[in-house]
Amino acid sequence: MSVDLRYDDDVTEVVEKTTRFVRDYVLPLENEHRGDINAAGGDDLRREMNAKAKAEGIFAPHAPVQFGGLGLNMSDRAPVFAAAGYSTFGPIALHIGAPDEGNVHMLAHIASDEQKQKYLAPLAAGDVRSAFAMTEPSPGAGSDPNALSTAAVKVDGGWKINGEKRFITGAEGAGFFIIMARTAGAPGDRGGATMFLAPADTPGISVDRHIVTTDRSMIGGHCEVSFTDVFVPDEDILGEVDEGYRYAQVRLGPARMTHVMRWFGSAQRCHDVAVDYVSKREGFGGKLGDLGMIQQMVADNEIDLAASMALLVKACHELDAGSHASNETSIAKTFTAEAYTRIADRSMQMCGGLGVSEDLPIARLQQELRPFRIYDGPSEVHRWAIARRAIGRAKKAAQAVAGR
Amino acid sequence: MSVDLRYDDDVTEVVEKTTRFVRDYVLPLENEHRGDINAAGGDDLRREMNAKAKAEGIFAPHAPVQFGGLGLNMSDRAPVFAAAGYSTFGPIALHIGAPDEGNVHMLAHIASDEQKQKYLAPLAAGDVRSAFAMTEPSPGAGSDPNALSTAAVKVDGGWKINGEKRFITGAEGAGFFIIMARTAGAPGDRGGATMFLAPADTPGISVDRHIVTTDRSMIGGHCEVSFTDVFVPDEDILGEVDEGYRYAQVRLGPARMTHVMRWFGSAQRCHDVAVDYVSKREGFGGKLGDLGMIQQMVADNEIDLAASMALLVKACHELDAGSHASNETSIAKTFTAEAYTRIADRSMQMCGGLGVSEDLPIARLQQELRPFRIYDGPSEVHRWAIARRAIGRAKKAAQAVAGR
Amino acid sequence: MSVDLRYDDDVTEVVEKTTRFVRDYVLPLENEHRGDINAAGGDDLRREMNAKAKAEGIFAPHAPVQFGGLGLNMSDRAPVFAAAGYSTFGPIALHIGAPDEGNVHMLAHIASDEQKQKYLAPLAAGDVRSAFAMTEPSPGAGSDPNALSTAAVKVDGGWKINGEKRFITGAEGAGFFIIMARTAGAPGDRGGATMFLAPADTPGISVDRHIVTTDRSMIGGHCEVSFTDVFVPDEDILGEVDEGYRYAQVRLGPARMTHVMRWFGSAQRCHDVAVDYVSKREGFGGKLGDLGMIQQMVADNEIDLAASMALLVKACHELDAGSHASNETSIAKTFTAEAYTRIADRSMQMCGGLGVSEDLPIARLQQELRPFRIYDGPSEVHRWAIARRAIGRAKKAAQAVAGR
Amino acid sequence: MSVDLRYDDDVTEVVEKTTRFVRDYVLPLENEHRGDINAAGGDDLRREMNAKAKAEGIFAPHAPVQFGGLGLNMSDRAPVFAAAGYSTFGPIALHIGAPDEGNVHMLAHIASDEQKQKYLAPLAAGDVRSAFAMTEPSPGAGSDPNALSTAAVKVDGGWKINGEKRFITGAEGAGFFIIMARTAGAPGDRGGATMFLAPADTPGISVDRHIVTTDRSMIGGHCEVSFTDVFVPDEDILGEVDEGYRYAQVRLGPARMTHVMRWFGSAQRCHDVAVDYVSKREGFGGKLGDLGMIQQMVADNEIDLAASMALLVKACHELDAGSHASNETSIAKTFTAEAYTRIADRSMQMCGGLGVSEDLPIARLQQELRPFRIYDGPSEVHRWAIARRAIGRAKKAAQAVAGR
Repeated sequence: MSVDLRYDDDVTEVVEKTTRFVRDYVLPLENEHRGDINAAGGDDLRREMNAKAKAEGIFAPHAPVQFGGLGLNMSDRAPVFAAAGYSTFGPIALHIGAPDEGNVHMLAHIASDEQKQKYLAPLAAGDVRSAFAMTEPSPGAGSDPNALSTAAVKVDGGWKINGEKRFITGAEGAGFFIIMARTAGAPGDRGGATMFLAPADTPGISVDRHIVTTDRSMIGGHCEVSFTDVFVPDEDILGEVDEGYRYAQVRLGPARMTHVMRWFGSAQRCHDVAVDYVSKREGFGGKLGDLGMIQQMVADNEIDLAASMALLVKACHELDAGSHASNETSIAKTFTAEAYTRIADRSMQMCGGLGVSEDLPIARLQQELRPFRIYDGPSEVHRWAIARRAIGRAKKAAQAVAGR
Repeated sequence: MSVDLRYDDDVTEVVEKTTRFVRDYVLPLENEHRGDINAAGGDDLRREMNAKAKAEGIFAPHAPVQFGGLGLNMSDRAPVFAAAGYSTFGPIALHIGAPDEGNVHMLAHIASDEQKQKYLAPLAAGDVRSAFAMTEPSPGAGSDPNALSTAAVKVDGGWKINGEKRFITGAEGAGFFIIMARTAGAPGDRGGATMFLAPADTPGISVDRHIVTTDRSMIGGHCEVSFTDVFVPDEDILGEVDEGYRYAQVRLGPARMTHVMRWFGSAQRCHDVAVDYVSKREGFGGKLGDLGMIQQMVADNEIDLAASMALLVKACHELDAGSHASNETSIAKTFTAEAYTRIADRSMQMCGGLGVSEDLPIARLQQELRPFRIYDGPSEVHRWAIARRAIGRAKKAAQAVAGR
Repeated sequence: MSVDLRYDDDVTEVVEKTTRFVRDYVLPLENEHRGDINAAGGDDLRREMNAKAKAEGIFAPHAPVQFGGLGLNMSDRAPVFAAAGYSTFGPIALHIGAPDEGNVHMLAHIASDEQKQKYLAPLAAGDVRSAFAMTEPSPGAGSDPNALSTAAVKVDGGWKINGEKRFITGAEGAGFFIIMARTAGAPGDRGGATMFLAPADTPGISVDRHIVTTDRSMIGGHCEVSFTDVFVPDEDILGEVDEGYRYAQVRLGPARMTHVMRWFGSAQRCHDVAVDYVSKREGFGGKLGDLGMIQQMVADNEIDLAASMALLVKACHELDAGSHASNETSIAKTFTAEAYTRIADRSMQMCGGLGVSEDLPIARLQQELRPFRIYDGPSEVHRWAIARRAIGRAKKAAQAVAGR
Repeated sequence: MSVDLRYDDDVTEVVEKTTRFVRDYVLPLENEHRGDINAAGGDDLRREMNAKAKAEGIFAPHAPVQFGGLGLNMSDRAPVFAAAGYSTFGPIALHIGAPDEGNVHMLAHIASDEQKQKYLAPLAAGDVRSAFAMTEPSPGAGSDPNALSTAAVKVDGGWKINGEKRFITGAEGAGFFIIMARTAGAPGDRGGATMFLAPADTPGISVDRHIVTTDRSMIGGHCEVSFTDVFVPDEDILGEVDEGYRYAQVRLGPARMTHVMRWFGSAQRCHDVAVDYVSKREGFGGKLGDLGMIQQMVADNEIDLAASMALLVKACHELDAGSHASNETSIAKTFTAEAYTRIADRSMQMCGGLGVSEDLPIARLQQELRPFRIYDGPSEVHRWAIARRAIGRAKKAAQAVAGR
């Protein structure tokens, strides 16, 4: 039979366990601390929640089975991660937050056996956290990865790295860094990037500043990090020299989609809070939920949630089928990031004055969701890529017709 | 494995055949006649195209195999109908246009064996067309089906029907009508509707006027029809007396989705024409397709097409699983109808002056697509239904919590 | 006192006369002919309507008093032209349609006394129509005027013009042409354009084809015109040689704003028809106008109309104050063109099936309004210009701060 | 001459002084304290800034001249208040923040001479602040003012007030309250409300809780206030008994518009910060400001700002002409509140990661602007009112036609 959208029973079971775990244990913690993970205890709270998740059998559902995870593929991660993301502390609790989750994914695909023991095993187990050091301050690699400026120079037995990075999520308190540095060519060139693994206590690594953003659920914050004569031995090169952009692709699509999954949960929660509110609140001779303009917002949220999930399912399917799925993940990322902002916005509006207050969680969830239109590639960059591919296909099709 | 979005090979083959058939044979006919099916020959052209489609083995892909069709389920119809809809004449050519396609679907599910021989067999074979007479002029059944005013009164050996219908697609030239009439209760009540089958030459049936709308691809037009003392014998009742609304549900979800499928093709075509245009047209020191604002429109079209297809796939899957899928089909219908209008609009804009001219097909395709936001339930009615369900679920959930 | 938005009494009187004239005389004609001015009689009908308008004292309200007009400035034209535009035949009736109205405006500002007698006098009186031949087929002057390809070469006693023009409104039946041709530089250069006046029967001028667009109210259509060795004597140069772009600016801003005025009327009419409909039509246990989602559309139309008028008033004030008002007119044009499309679209939606039918005028008015987002500079080109100016101002401001 | 949009020279001078004062003195204070007025010192800082504004001759520009203000009418307030609102501390500095500014306006129109001396004089001078206690928790007066539940009962020599209020801006630290209470009828009735003046230290007045919202620039916060047997003597009734709703109208329109003015400044600032950023930031082989999608956002901000100002100017003109201008102020309020949110959102997007960080002020300005879509009547309530009026006019027009 063509087309089957059902989940296997064991996946459904993990989803249900996660839903209960988040609702009964994680959400109260998040609400108590108004969603600020670092103020709430940071890694201490993380370890406490991780232990609970392990006890429930839902810890690290994405990690390889041999490293203690459930080994779920992308399709199966979707409903689990969404259930976790219903609380902004949920992904931390299940150890599926950014950037660790993407780093686990990449190490599982690319690292050598020795690297897996040294870096992946403790990361997958939640003993340490990690950071992915790619983005740079202007004029370095930002939306345009080709501008990579951080440079690694070959020295005896390894490489010496110098450069500045910015918006490095989780850098504060990370156990190790994956550093993207240029090993060939000049800023502006495509190619010539290499990934390096480095313990956080390697001399020359310095976490200089937290960039305070509107979101509060990223453990270790978004940091400025500098690398000064950081030595990385040859055996800590991740994959091959000069192949960094190719490996970044391996991480990119899945990491995008797990963002989509997690934040789906938060968007769903905004909607749930608002629908509950309008179903009860009196006004204009009935319930607010009886009013057409309110119903329009409810329906538009429902449509946005359904379209978000449908695009996510499609992109995960392509990734599981072995494709880079650059187009499908760009489309899903762009649509959902904007849909989530719309959902949060409508939910705030439906709740009136309370919607913009701390009495309800929507206003702070909106602050968590908004940056997704910028993080992981701004919508504009994705649209540019999507359009370029479409126009490229049109040109090829025109040539094919012309050649007939 | 969870989640599989692939089509079986035999479905893919039908899609490919349909794509070629439409491109090479149907599209040139449509362009020649500027998309006006009735001016192009109406049923004469239809029979000619039907014969070609039969020869290709792609005729009536939705009809039951014993009546000459391919017996595709909803999921498999999606890519085939979309390929047919690339031309506005394509659905007529494959005999999958509204309302015949939905009527075939409903008769296959509800009709008695005798009714199948008398009505379904010639309809499935394309020997005759049919009409579905439900919508009424104000204050009768329009967006609000409970307002049904056409009445059937029991007489000896059958029923006598009186009433006015409006926007009856395909009425002119139809071989028979499926008439929705009230057999119990009063306008405004839920329930008490019955479906009747009646040959078009039954005394008292009169096609009074064509309502000229912006679309030109509906064979037989959108008509006002009156029923004056129309006698229908008991054996031509479709299903059970007073169960008409329930049967309408059987037709409703699938008929909505096949609209979504067919018009997907037309929206895709608008996009293709525009992308081809901007990939070639010079301006501002390069191609139009190099400009950011154009790329934004291209990307937004791609996103809208992808989300439309993803929602359609989801809704079809639910229908095939045996659900009425009222919510999924409402969501897919509402989103896609609006997305298709946006796609046509952006495509026109990308082509500048030619976009609003007859030199390109986009302007007239836009006229075909726009009414979909009204036909088959205006977006507002669907949003109302979607919201009501969401609020209803919230109330139930609140009661469940309260009851714990 | 600062800020006064009132109109003088004599202007108000012209508005009221125009409103009645259009409602009682012009609208019935338009409806009878379904808005197709050329099918309705073209210039014969125009002359008939012009005579009536003259009798009412509302003919050519923009033309100089010495040429028989009312000499209204831009601010005062706004409410008069909007009242005329309530019918798509109204601007023809008052002789304020494009391109004649803009040509009158430009000739009044730039033409020599002899040219005024020869060209402006009969044009202002409605004895002849005119055309403005600027836009060219790709790769010539389209959205990018610098690409001007039509060339004028100096010959004895005058100039010889060769080139192709496209989308020349009113060309069929025009009494004379204003031709924009390159007299210096090469396509792509700024500068070097000159305007020439040429009677339509000048040898070498050929109206080759009508481009059929969705609008039907432009007398003489939108045409392809070719110039083959067209001789223009020196005395028929409009203004100075090589100053064509500068003169085009004189015409540009006002011509943009009179489009905004006229189509305001059509947008208002769409809205009026829809509000009248929803105030009467029954449904869902009341009037449609009692439903929140309908009210949202009504209110959004009201807001769009109010913002359109407010931006128009502002831009006209700047033009009357002697500025080119490039930014104000770009902003008003871009906003209103999109607002009018939205208004027509919502109005269609409010009227359900009738909204997309010929039973109401909205669907065809939508076809008149949609091209305005392309005509007179697509929205994208205006946005580009608006942004460039804003960024330019920011750079200057930054330099000013740096220089302190 | 019809239509004049110029400001008198003395107004322009106040605007320029305010612009410099805000840029050089107020903005640095706001940035130092990240826009949190209460954390920055509250009334202490206010008095300090007020003294400076007085020295500049720009204090209380809206207050009557006899009470130390500049006596500007609504039209002239617009550019001054917008210049003040460029900083969120600016309105506090000029003493034109909500609710004091609206209270000054209302007292100047309605209070008795004795009340003016007792309440208006110290308020206009900035010696005290005030609060306007109208909004109530559900099911009291929220979006629907007729639900007023707080009751005043006639007692000897005055009235005794009991009830709960919510979202009372500036309540903490206010010198006196204007209390809206029901003196006739029951909740749900129109009419029967009266306004009372009461010093904050009147027994029975209690400020119970701050509702923490996303905005931080309202001195005294948004509070829950309860009134328990609060005695108000007859001479402190503001205006006439039972006329409270009518007086609320006097305050309503102008108060709405001054919100529009102040927040215009903040929206303009978001835009200025973003345009400055994209004019300098490198990326994709040039400046970000060279990219089409960025230019689109810049242009859309420019359009939104221009339309906001144009609608504001129109509404102020109507208010100055003596109208309640309910429709014009509803339209201007609804459009601008949504436009400001869009402007802030685009500005954030243009600045990428910095846009959602504390490194730039946009993210926190967005938090100031968002609530405006809810405060002073949610957009939905205004749309309902706008639509009801439009439909009412249509009904009247139809009756007029029918009656001819």
